Amino acid sequence: MRDVTPWPLRSADRTGAPAAPMDLSTLSVGQYDFIANAFSFGLAVMVATTIFLWFSRSHVAPAYKMAITISGLVTAIAGYHYLQIMLSWESAFSVTNGTIETTGYAYNQAYRYVDWLLTVPLLLVELILVMRLSRSETVSKSVTLGGAAALMIILGYPGEVAEGGATRFLFWVLSMIPFVYIVYQLVVGLKGSISKQPENVRGLINGAATLVVVSWLFYPIVYLFPLIGLTGGAAVTAVEVGYTVADIVAKAVFGILILTIAMRKSEAESNASA
Amino acid sequence: MRDVTPWPLRSADRTGAPAAPMDLSTLSVGQYDFIANAFSFGLAVMVATTIFLWFSRSHVAPAYKMAITISGLVTAIAGYHYLQIMLSWESAFSVTNGTIETTGYAYNQAYRYVDWLLTVPLLLVELILVMRLSRSETVSKSVTLGGAAALMIILGYPGEVAEGGATRFLFWVLSMIPFVYIVYQLVVGLKGSISKQPENVRGLINGAATLVVVSWLFYPIVYLFPLIGLTGGAAVTAVEVGYTVADIVAKAVFGILILTIAMRKSEAESNASA
Repeated sequence: MRDVTPWPLRSADRTGAPAAPMDLSTLSVGQYDFIANAFSFGLAVMVATTIFLWFSRSHVAPAYKMAITISGLVTAIAGYHYLQIMLSWESAFSVTNGTIETTGYAYNQAYRYVDWLLTVPLLLVELILVMRLSRSETVSKSVTLGGAAALMIILGYPGEVAEGGATRFLFWVLSMIPFVYIVYQLVVGLKGSISKQPENVRGLINGAATLVVVSWLFYPIVYLFPLIGLTGGAAVTAVEVGYTVADIVAKAVFGILILTIAMRKSEAESNASA
Repeated sequence: MRDVTPWPLRSADRTGAPAAPMDLSTLSVGQYDFIANAFSFGLAVMVATTIFLWFSRSHVAPAYKMAITISGLVTAIAGYHYLQIMLSWESAFSVTNGTIETTGYAYNQAYRYVDWLLTVPLLLVELILVMRLSRSETVSKSVTLGGAAALMIILGYPGEVAEGGATRFLFWVLSMIPFVYIVYQLVVGLKGSISKQPENVRGLINGAATLVVVSWLFYPIVYLFPLIGLTGGAAVTAVEVGYTVADIVAKAVFGILILTIAMRKSEAESNASA
């Protein structure tokens, strides 16, 4: 069986074998704390957003309740994974009297991939559901965009855990194919459907699609960090805090935006039918 | 990268380098216990208030439900952070046979900043939502007041973790700019909107705005304690217990006040439409 330990702490890194892309042993106490606080912040934001979204289901028309249920599911799943990430992070280090040591327990970065595999397809489904397209369009767009998103995550993982830079780059390229397809669909492919949306939400839906594209750009860039020599404590801090901010924007802020769209559409539709 | 370890336990504090603004090693058993009990009290109050507020959503008109949902979110988020603060406090000390020792594990005061970054903007949003202004006013006031609140917290943090008194004072001044802006908005800027509120709640809304201003005054004063030489066990006790009381007033008492306003307005509006 191949070694699937997350790359920052693969045993090879600790035994002088091929250098790890990123080395946790260079982290300072301040960097460790800052990352731990960012994870705790992420956990609190995700759980709070979940509760807010699920309470707010009562403010939208029945047609939009499923979009809001799923928006809250995305942040709930992310909240669970931030708890796991936070605990894994704490178990990987021991900080006493202001000095930091690695404990030898691995920081399991694979939780991020498990999270994305579930949440990234779901948040595209949120966006499709809130547009309230025809049933056939809803199904076909959910399957193609959700499927492409799952494929993107699955193709990224082997490169993330690979020893060599060449393998990492190969899977980056493979993973970018579905990535570019999704971005194309969001920026160009959905244009027709967006133009049929009520005028009061068209800007918001465009905004939600743009938010996905912009917040997602962070991930492939960070993935390349080890290849361009960005390692060490500062790089680990940038990656972990950056992922957390990107996740908050792509899931929590995005979910609130989907709720706003659903509330406006519900309001407009109830006025139209009155 | 700069050291962002919370100031009470930065490594320098323990190695005879520049004196810590506050030193946990001078704490007595009685002071340790008193603070631990205050944290437990804070946790219980926050969780109980959350449950009370969310159950009470059914007592207010739909227009006010979101204000109550958010009031409960603020206390829920604070409850989570009081749990983290309490656990961090307990891990920093070992009390056996009536003697107290520091364990070397840091007391992570940054949890307070993580908490405030989320809850302070939200509790201004509570107040705006319960006033039921026009949509554009609600959005613009939420963005400006919430944004100023977030900026205030972010600007306070570098001074809190800084070594030197000068840096601490500089960030105190910077953080006071959004603070004064918010206070001005609450005391003067909202006057026009408050005068348009139904007469039976005008006093309560004024009271809620005043409660925010008064309870907030505690924070910038405490922030200056280390600069005026207030350190040691008694100062730590005053700061930690004081923060806890201020948090309870600004979040739990404030949340109950928001609920009262929402219930009175719901009642008045249902009478008016009957």
